[in-house]
Amino acid sequence: MTSTLILLRHGESTWNALNLFTGWVDVPLSDKGVAEAVRGGELLKEQGVLPDVVHTSLQRRAISTAYYALNEADRHWIPVRRSWRLNERHYGDLQGKDKKETLQTYGEDQFMLWRRSYDVPPPPIADDNTYSQAVDPRYADLGDQAPKTECLQDVVARLVPYLQGEIFDDLRAGRTVLVAAHGNSLRAVVKTLDGISDEAIAKVNIPTGIPLRYDLDDDLQPITAGGEYLDPEAAAAAIQAVANQGR
Amino acid sequence: MTSTLILLRHGESTWNALNLFTGWVDVPLSDKGVAEAVRGGELLKEQGVLPDVVHTSLQRRAISTAYYALNEADRHWIPVRRSWRLNERHYGDLQGKDKKETLQTYGEDQFMLWRRSYDVPPPPIADDNTYSQAVDPRYADLGDQAPKTECLQDVVARLVPYLQGEIFDDLRAGRTVLVAAHGNSLRAVVKTLDGISDEAIAKVNIPTGIPLRYDLDDDLQPITAGGEYLDPEAAAAAIQAVANQGR
Repeated sequence: MTSTLILLRHGESTWNALNLFTGWVDVPLSDKGVAEAVRGGELLKEQGVLPDVVHTSLQRRAISTAYYALNEADRHWIPVRRSWRLNERHYGDLQGKDKKETLQTYGEDQFMLWRRSYDVPPPPIADDNTYSQAVDPRYADLGDQAPKTECLQDVVARLVPYLQGEIFDDLRAGRTVLVAAHGNSLRAVVKTLDGISDEAIAKVNIPTGIPLRYDLDDDLQPITAGGEYLDPEAAAAAIQAVANQGR
Repeated sequence: MTSTLILLRHGESTWNALNLFTGWVDVPLSDKGVAEAVRGGELLKEQGVLPDVVHTSLQRRAISTAYYALNEADRHWIPVRRSWRLNERHYGDLQGKDKKETLQTYGEDQFMLWRRSYDVPPPPIADDNTYSQAVDPRYADLGDQAPKTECLQDVVARLVPYLQGEIFDDLRAGRTVLVAAHGNSLRAVVKTLDGISDEAIAKVNIPTGIPLRYDLDDDLQPITAGGEYLDPEAAAAAIQAVANQGR
């Protein structure tokens, strides 16, 4: 028996346009981000890839993406599960800071280390920083588990128990599972499913708003490595655009 | 220990304006209905009545109401539970029919019996009727339990096990519970909580979009019979407007 896992990265938030580090700051989707979610739902509906259950992070931009996509696909009524383990990478003290100013202050080497290294987190955020989640009620139960900064390795470490627990449980029950989440938590999913190395994962970019479908075998291994985007042309163009940004 | 249950009836749907019987037909909120849900969320936030968990029906107008209200109250991240037992009353063969035409065809006595009697359901809907849910995947697991018409008594019968099961379980765990649902499923909740007679419940009208708060004692009995609306003046005006319609 094969099972199906669909990954959906949220689209543009109001802070993308402002060019600020976001991380765990709970910003909403922009109008463009809402349109991306609706388009994701259209693709699910057109291709008959219909989720039986949805998992989201505890962040508004992923929760709204799931809402608009499922509403469009007429699957608004399916069960919903949420976990902080699907949250975006915590960006530590960089949260709320301007990306360009940060680059100028710290220089390109340090900037890229924080953005793309596997195991170097930014400095931790202070509890009294405006952009800290120290007193956010949704994380009150986490206690010492609540991160104050994360590198991608940290995201993988907190994501994997949830992926191999709650999400795999739903897949083993034969359900088609939608995961609506973030660039780095979905990178952690893809790294785990495809067995990508710590070095190579930095170069994997998942486009926003285009559902990425993995069909999985009995051992929950991908039948096609890397999965298949529901709109392959749009996905290829988006990945190429990110690659060109680095030039 | 007291616990808190908040009832929220969805606002205007696209079929309200068209004056059609809706029941289990899955119509969306109108723009006005969305605004009502947002206003409901504002009231929750302003008064610090913050749900820890939300229960919805499987119908879009209740699901959207929960989404917009919780998004506004910054409680979008709470766990979500859904059940067909919170659905609106199934209106049988009347679903999709014009209310005024139905009144003219069947006469006022029969019309009011279907609308307001406790135990007289409309004729059952045929499976091949456009407005039947016979092939709707969300009800596929129900089998023979899936109604083809309902009177309010039937709604009470299918609602009570869920109220006294899943919802009471959350209340006993000390959670503040939001139930986003429909005129008749919320009537069934209120009838059960307040011990209202089969005759008197027909005259109870719950306004749309105004959260109705019940504080409950250790035995989950209401501390104040009938609960308290978060906007009492608006609720009283809406109830009076409905009463005046009958004149």
